[in-house]
Amino acid sequence: MLAVHIENGCVTVRELPIPARPPGYALLRLICAGICNTDIELLRGYYDFRGTPGHEFVAEVIETDDARLAGRRVVGEINLACGDCEWCHRGLGRHCPRRTVLGIAGHPGAFSEFFTLPERNLHIVPDAIPVECAVFTEPLAAACEILDQVKIPRAAPVAVLGDGKLGLLIAQVLVAHGAAVHVFGRHPAKLEIARAAGATVKLAGDELSQAAFDWVVEATGSAEGFDCAARMVRPRGTVILKSTVHSPLSIDTAPLVVNEITLVGSRCGRFDPALWLLRKGRVNVGNMIAARFPLAEAPRAFERAAGKGCLKVLLDSSGTGGK
Amino acid sequence: MLAVHIENGCVTVRELPIPARPPGYALLRLICAGICNTDIELLRGYYDFRGTPGHEFVAEVIETDDARLAGRRVVGEINLACGDCEWCHRGLGRHCPRRTVLGIAGHPGAFSEFFTLPERNLHIVPDAIPVECAVFTEPLAAACEILDQVKIPRAAPVAVLGDGKLGLLIAQVLVAHGAAVHVFGRHPAKLEIARAAGATVKLAGDELSQAAFDWVVEATGSAEGFDCAARMVRPRGTVILKSTVHSPLSIDTAPLVVNEITLVGSRCGRFDPALWLLRKGRVNVGNMIAARFPLAEAPRAFERAAGKGCLKVLLDSSGTGGK
Repeated sequence: MLAVHIENGCVTVRELPIPARPPGYALLRLICAGICNTDIELLRGYYDFRGTPGHEFVAEVIETDDARLAGRRVVGEINLACGDCEWCHRGLGRHCPRRTVLGIAGHPGAFSEFFTLPERNLHIVPDAIPVECAVFTEPLAAACEILDQVKIPRAAPVAVLGDGKLGLLIAQVLVAHGAAVHVFGRHPAKLEIARAAGATVKLAGDELSQAAFDWVVEATGSAEGFDCAARMVRPRGTVILKSTVHSPLSIDTAPLVVNEITLVGSRCGRFDPALWLLRKGRVNVGNMIAARFPLAEAPRAFERAAGKGCLKVLLDSSGTGGK
Repeated sequence: MLAVHIENGCVTVRELPIPARPPGYALLRLICAGICNTDIELLRGYYDFRGTPGHEFVAEVIETDDARLAGRRVVGEINLACGDCEWCHRGLGRHCPRRTVLGIAGHPGAFSEFFTLPERNLHIVPDAIPVECAVFTEPLAAACEILDQVKIPRAAPVAVLGDGKLGLLIAQVLVAHGAAVHVFGRHPAKLEIARAAGATVKLAGDELSQAAFDWVVEATGSAEGFDCAARMVRPRGTVILKSTVHSPLSIDTAPLVVNEITLVGSRCGRFDPALWLLRKGRVNVGNMIAARFPLAEAPRAFERAAGKGCLKVLLDSSGTGGK
């Protein structure tokens, strides 16, 4: 089978054997996958990664012991948890200290014609959701995670900093929630997607309001974005950190204490709310697709995805298998 | 009247006229005041301060239009809010953007034989609370603020980093709340105060548990304390920032995001819970008094309070007035 391989900053496509299916796991055949900023970061060497990346996917279940899943189109949660620890018992396997992570840490990823995942990680995709929408389930779940962590009142003004893929999904999730969303970004074309979804948009560079929002979501992944968030949040307000910055930030904690600001780190989320939003058509992801490439052309796809300001690049499996 | 004056890193005691009492204000005669770390920071020039400091006090109401207050022994909230803005209407005058702050910003402080405060800032001290305990109301209220901001379950293990004045008050408030409090500090004598109050104590320098607490309170005021807090908190846990560090911290935000940590800045609190704890004898502040000086000896008192590891230094007014 074909599988993408990342090593020393290079993307190649290799012929590998189809993986064995451990007990409790399903063998999956890739239908479509999405390239995430994290994949670009793996390529750039941030996590000392070598192997097959990919954690946003839609696949067909080829082999399973779970009759409910056999032959179905699925998406899958990316954290492979032990199932036995306190975190797993609390339904928070996403924080299991023994977890591996699909295509990121310790488990080969989805940019491969075939791959495996625990059956309990899989969610059947309702027929109403087309493949090119379902492939957004994982990042959309990460956007939904915000509403599982903090109680944002409906109609509350919320600032979303960043008009990248994650920022646009967050904006749409918050609009669907009923918030008054203000997206601050640098790209008029991307801001237009947020505007069409019902957000108020503003080009960064314009003067930003100080202490203006009770809720600010930082989704720029830049040190500057963090600084803006800290300035834009009101006393007693909350800044949700959705993106990581790959160097330590210099943070003046005094205003955080004096103004009693809350910072909330936010990562992966539950798939159910994301699938619900996609099935109900409450978010529009079709206009976030920048390009589609066959899996065999992954090097070109990565090059495109790494381009400045690029939205979602998809990888389509040929479906011929190579079995 | 005698009033302490801070300017260019020097503490002096001056003879000043008794201040005029604006409408809505009470004229107060100092009985006893406490020197806070913030006062030491004002002396060191952190806030570009010049004038009379002091915001922890017990005083007698000398002149007032509020019959309920006349002649009573009072403590007072330190934020002088406008009373008209959204914050004030929400009962959060502590965050009023037009506020001045007693002895810190824009309003002369309590290290003075006479001073003024709005009548609405004053709380009558129950007779059962001796002066040398009531003078801890303000910092104790700041410790209580934590429980107004986050819901710490009773019996939950909580780490308190720092065995200074604020750390010891926080530890006692959390013990009174029913939490399983673990205090980490550098001073065996101070840790003994926490132990006597019912906390488990540990000398910092011993190996610290990693990812061991759902709740961590940072009260060291040091960059190292913040790093320890970030390492000791569990995934999905909360770090409460009670102390400020006077230089930007270098913070790696990636673990905060991946582990979905919440940071909560925490400052002043309501006086009612603090007075309740003092009246019920649920906290013991008597053993936190390091020394008492007459107001006229404020320079010596500041010198003592600024000494490494010093607990609370009190200033007693002579009561002779100088009117």
